[in-house]
Amino acid sequence: MIINPNRLTPKERYKLMIGAILPRPIAWVSSMDKAGNLNIAPFSYFTAVCSHPMTLLFCVGYSPQKEGKKDTLRNIEAVREFVINLANENLAEVMSLTSAALPYGQSEFEYAGLTPAPGETIQVPRIAAAPIAYECKLQRIVTVSDQPGGGSVVFGEVECIHVADDIYRDGYIQLDLFKPIGRLGGSGYVRVTDTFEMERP
Amino acid sequence: MIINPNRLTPKERYKLMIGAILPRPIAWVSSMDKAGNLNIAPFSYFTAVCSHPMTLLFCVGYSPQKEGKKDTLRNIEAVREFVINLANENLAEVMSLTSAALPYGQSEFEYAGLTPAPGETIQVPRIAAAPIAYECKLQRIVTVSDQPGGGSVVFGEVECIHVADDIYRDGYIQLDLFKPIGRLGGSGYVRVTDTFEMERP
Repeated sequence: MIINPNRLTPKERYKLMIGAILPRPIAWVSSMDKAGNLNIAPFSYFTAVCSHPMTLLFCVGYSPQKEGKKDTLRNIEAVREFVINLANENLAEVMSLTSAALPYGQSEFEYAGLTPAPGETIQVPRIAAAPIAYECKLQRIVTVSDQPGGGSVVFGEVECIHVADDIYRDGYIQLDLFKPIGRLGGSGYVRVTDTFEMERP
Repeated sequence: MIINPNRLTPKERYKLMIGAILPRPIAWVSSMDKAGNLNIAPFSYFTAVCSHPMTLLFCVGYSPQKEGKKDTLRNIEAVREFVINLANENLAEVMSLTSAALPYGQSEFEYAGLTPAPGETIQVPRIAAAPIAYECKLQRIVTVSDQPGGGSVVFGEVECIHVADDIYRDGYIQLDLFKPIGRLGGSGYVRVTDTFEMERP
């Protein structure tokens, strides 16, 4: 089947990405406005970029509810710092709660019953319960489009990494202790349990 | 545990990203140089960006073997078109073969025994066996660093989508028929089988 995206609505194109480009890791982003109001939201358009400088990126879609700009993007533009936290299976439900569109300035920390932990190198707190967290300084924002269906790509340079002691052994993050989850299409998620190995040629 | 990335080697930072930011979807990219020589390579720093314009991105790391610049990046800079193919479980081994660093101009299509299928909207062929493929025109390249450990982010605008008829039913890509795989740390991969659902609040 050959599909011309120009004949699809943005919603139909969205379905042909989230149902195909998967499983996706989830950036569970904590951010703060200049007055210190905290925010948390999950984003599954997320990837590592490179190791030197240590760089991550995630994409923030246009938000019809928020005059186009989600609180996370607004906060990062203002404060230029953020934390990419990683959730695990135990935190899945509470992470899902933080995707609620609360009024600007209302904290998902309180809403979801999460505790902020102070940053080591930045002002923005991480999520204390998250097993892994990357404190980031804003490197750049690349806006592909600020119109409906569009999005902005937020690049962060990692200033500090937090790893829970109980998931780190022998120099590696242990998958069976970390228990990560990935995002699928619709309301689907995946546990990382059905694994296999292939050596590079 | 609190880790200062400035005290780590790029290799150690890499391990703290690929072992944590997962499961990762895999962009299996076909590209072509100006003389028509074909290339294929898999990249797991890959994400959707937004729906309008329909945009995907993947990251190409600095390559010590290739004077810094992988064939894929070199080709895309020259031809400004490429295809992001998606593999599945049946294609996992042949996809892994295409990560071999062949001399410039030598085709991974031939090396891995894959058949190219002509593009509908671009000159670059897709991988005929891939169940899903996005024909892309280069939108922009954002180079974070062209030095060792660095990388470039390649943004593609989707001009055409191919979906195998036998995985598409009722307006959706069917996960159990698609059988996608995700990338983990080391030489690990995951099947998308241990799934669950959570509705957004």
